[in-house]
Amino acid sequence: MEKLSVDAAFDSFEETWAPRLAAELNGQALKLARLDGEFVWHAHDDADELFWVLEGGPLDVEFREEATETLGPGELLVVPAGIEHRPVARSPAKVALFEPSGTTNTGDAGGERTRDVERL
Amino acid sequence: MEKLSVDAAFDSFEETWAPRLAAELNGQALKLARLDGEFVWHAHDDADELFWVLEGGPLDVEFREEATETLGPGELLVVPAGIEHRPVARSPAKVALFEPSGTTNTGDAGGERTRDVERL
Repeated sequence: MEKLSVDAAFDSFEETWAPRLAAELNGQALKLARLDGEFVWHAHDDADELFWVLEGGPLDVEFREEATETLGPGELLVVPAGIEHRPVARSPAKVALFEPSGTTNTGDAGGERTRDVERL
Repeated sequence: MEKLSVDAAFDSFEETWAPRLAAELNGQALKLARLDGEFVWHAHDDADELFWVLEGGPLDVEFREEATETLGPGELLVVPAGIEHRPVARSPAKVALFEPSGTTNTGDAGGERTRDVERL
């Protein structure tokens, strides 16, 4: 067991849209990510995904058939499995993600913005 | 889908050691809890548990056979399943917990400090 400082973790990387692994438990992963600008439309077929804006933003979470949810600091949202979504950070945001281990950032979309998850 | 404000959630209750349910996903629960003073020694036989101090503290997480981990704001720790622990908040703390749905606050110890988890 070793504690982790969220601030120190964010200070350790600059890359956006490349979630880092902060902790693993019960087959799930807590990831920390810097988001800025638009990401790709995608869904995670078997994984609910929690977005929690810690700092910055706002973060728009766009959906195909529902209204956009806009998250400011201290606001969180669960996107259910299978729901196509596109995160758009209107300003740089520090975000916590919670989802099953092995979930990829681009989900079913794949492509050049897919990133391996580095451990912090 | 409905977003949740963590600040508003904490403003909605005062009780300590009574985690509230902020979100459920993938069979897991994100809970928010106010902690103050000593809790009971306990373990969760089948559940890893994440403690994340959001504000206040420090929070000591004591163990039977390992050194205490002390968490300040922005620090988090995973306590593996089966490891007996006792949280002690030296000052009032706002804490996020992540663990499987159905995990009780007192684990295998039970007793009078057990609380049902109310949804926020």
